[in-house]
Amino acid sequence: MSNRGNADVLIVGAGPAALFAVFQLGIYGLRCHLVERLDRAGGQCTVLYPDKSIYDVPAFPEIGGDDLTERLLRQGAPCGPCFTFGRSAVELALVDGRWQLDLDDGTAILAGYVILATGIGMFDMPPGERGGVELVPGPVAQWSLDRSRGGIHVDPATLETSRPGVFAIGDACDYPGKLKLILSAFHEAALATQEIRKRHAGTRLPAVEYSTTSRRVRARLGRS
Amino acid sequence: MSNRGNADVLIVGAGPAALFAVFQLGIYGLRCHLVERLDRAGGQCTVLYPDKSIYDVPAFPEIGGDDLTERLLRQGAPCGPCFTFGRSAVELALVDGRWQLDLDDGTAILAGYVILATGIGMFDMPPGERGGVELVPGPVAQWSLDRSRGGIHVDPATLETSRPGVFAIGDACDYPGKLKLILSAFHEAALATQEIRKRHAGTRLPAVEYSTTSRRVRARLGRS
Repeated sequence: MSNRGNADVLIVGAGPAALFAVFQLGIYGLRCHLVERLDRAGGQCTVLYPDKSIYDVPAFPEIGGDDLTERLLRQGAPCGPCFTFGRSAVELALVDGRWQLDLDDGTAILAGYVILATGIGMFDMPPGERGGVELVPGPVAQWSLDRSRGGIHVDPATLETSRPGVFAIGDACDYPGKLKLILSAFHEAALATQEIRKRHAGTRLPAVEYSTTSRRVRARLGRS
Repeated sequence: MSNRGNADVLIVGAGPAALFAVFQLGIYGLRCHLVERLDRAGGQCTVLYPDKSIYDVPAFPEIGGDDLTERLLRQGAPCGPCFTFGRSAVELALVDGRWQLDLDDGTAILAGYVILATGIGMFDMPPGERGGVELVPGPVAQWSLDRSRGGIHVDPATLETSRPGVFAIGDACDYPGKLKLILSAFHEAALATQEIRKRHAGTRLPAVEYSTTSRRVRARLGRS
């Protein structure tokens, strides 16, 4: 099985939750590799409502799904994410202390941590149907993970699933009070980031850094 | 004691958490009254970094505190919030099943629910100091509420404090994993909103409404 590379964090999905996780992890120096079944980023924003307005993204009285996706991609760009489009995740296994994700083309990606940001399911484009997209249960739905209310059950303080080192954020996850809102996915990405960076740094943990005051954060984003 | 009016929800503070709560509650038809010690909205954004850039507000690669405040005010404007600036909350008491908030000018506001969005403390402008602002422990710090790690302890699923019907969001609150990030305050406002609307609606609870698909939500925001 050929290896597509090593990443600090492997993210399954490329919707708003995944894209904001790229940025959150990136400001702490963690590099992400995203795997997305479709040929582009955006998830539901791109598939279900590219031209439809969304009114409940904080500080945007109105924004289109494509515009939101573009802005999140731009925000995460300085963090140097790696994208693998058009491939789906098949199997996830712990190999020598790292996670190995097998893709449907026989390749694999290795990573220290995994974030499942698979939304409400996998979108597929049936051959021959121009522009048509259908929601199908992807292989992730078969993985051995505790579930609740149709979602992947997580610890609400860390977004960790029942498999240590595997996290779930956005519409894919469930915990008491869970709301399937884009703004909640952003918060979940931030909480998962803190847990991952704590484990990654071990004892060398720097304090939480704020973008308004941390020179290191601004330097990583290419800002003065 | 003269009454400044009745509100569905009374919010102490007018920073990003409070402003986004106005919008979240508003899309479910709940009217808010905000009390703010300063003479304007924005909280820390306005006081500590009006001209400084923030890089971690989702979908904004860079935004100033004043710009963020203005955008949140605009997003919540169709929800018709009432603002009382330049006054601070002194005492909170349950009177005939409603919350009564006494202000420092001897007036009072009545509401069914209270959200404390008091941030890291009360900002005050000492007389004679032009443009100077200091952080002081406001009366809310003396109220009888369970606390943890310096914050007001809340149920993470609902953001409710130890006093039923009183919620805390943003930097003022604490729960396992709590991060003092603006994006977390937005999520907390959304969770508190769901709990308040459930109690307010009683058995007549409509389902969670999404701005992309709900005509009622769009009508409340003055959109077609």
